[in-house]
Amino acid sequence: MRSRVTAEPVAKLIDEFGKLPGVGPKTASRLAYHILRSDREEAVALAEAILEVKERIVLCSTCFNITEHDPCPICSDEQRDRRTICVVEEPLDVVALDRTGEYNGLYHVLHGVLSPVDGIGPDRLRIRELVARVQADPPDEVILALNPNIEGDATAMYIARQLLPLGVTVTRPASGLPVGGDLEYADEVTLGRALAGRRAL
Amino acid sequence: MRSRVTAEPVAKLIDEFGKLPGVGPKTASRLAYHILRSDREEAVALAEAILEVKERIVLCSTCFNITEHDPCPICSDEQRDRRTICVVEEPLDVVALDRTGEYNGLYHVLHGVLSPVDGIGPDRLRIRELVARVQADPPDEVILALNPNIEGDATAMYIARQLLPLGVTVTRPASGLPVGGDLEYADEVTLGRALAGRRAL
Repeated sequence: MRSRVTAEPVAKLIDEFGKLPGVGPKTASRLAYHILRSDREEAVALAEAILEVKERIVLCSTCFNITEHDPCPICSDEQRDRRTICVVEEPLDVVALDRTGEYNGLYHVLHGVLSPVDGIGPDRLRIRELVARVQADPPDEVILALNPNIEGDATAMYIARQLLPLGVTVTRPASGLPVGGDLEYADEVTLGRALAGRRAL
Repeated sequence: MRSRVTAEPVAKLIDEFGKLPGVGPKTASRLAYHILRSDREEAVALAEAILEVKERIVLCSTCFNITEHDPCPICSDEQRDRRTICVVEEPLDVVALDRTGEYNGLYHVLHGVLSPVDGIGPDRLRIRELVARVQADPPDEVILALNPNIEGDATAMYIARQLLPLGVTVTRPASGLPVGGDLEYADEVTLGRALAGRRAL
């Protein structure tokens, strides 16, 4: 039935959009018909941007962030503090941290967290590379900026157990109330951590 | 700042995804990083599907639905009831109506509705072509299946005024309570229309 009323290239495009995360069948249809209605240039620009990303992007062999050139601009930037490594789950976290303006050190991207349920063990992440990197050129501090949830906490513990014997300082960002948030709406775990981590003014 | 931490092809892809309807900056980043992580084949399939839609899809010269071949499969299907034309706003509506299995006639796609605020007058829609089509080969009935909102209603009135003098029956689908809906949650306009359109059992 569908093949009759939806032309095959359109059905194909709806299928492909539907494979993207968070895109259901209705959204996929909307996106496909948007492409149909849009200028040819806009559609070609999107298609080319997709292909270009796959062709030109590699992983930095030092920090495993995505980059056009290996080593990446951050790893080869002599202006940055090379005595601190911030460990994150994915490239988007690097963007978020750098946007704060509070951090000027190096990064190390794990590309995931430990998750036994999904079959993701230490070998699937860049943990071995992190330990080797710390051994080869020990930094003053390694910040484990993993998401504050069960998987992130477990991964941080696992990494800390391997780094602490090497004599480096290992830290995690503070957990607490989000700035601009409302104390009465904070969940009890967050509020508990905020209390436990209280600081003198 | 952004150019430093986000490789240029990735920033470009985020920009392009951000032009899609309903895709904000955060979603655009998510989609871009999904493409980065996904198999090369999946990314290429999406890019090719986008290009193919722009290359192979045309508008049917009779009903203005999107199609690979002109006339479209619906207009050239001799099994369908050629005495009824259902007028819709966009190609997605054709898919939705055909999926009901309740309609086996022909279609006419306007590609929009009258919206003076957005500068969309009758010349921007396929209304002239509809009138010419009805004049050339008068059907028994024209169903104006436009969305039941202000623009849809106004467009239906505008079209009806041009078709009624030609002696065809012009109808609109019933407005009323959605099947499976809850009477107490229906808005007052819908409930009012449902009452006004009540039918004997």
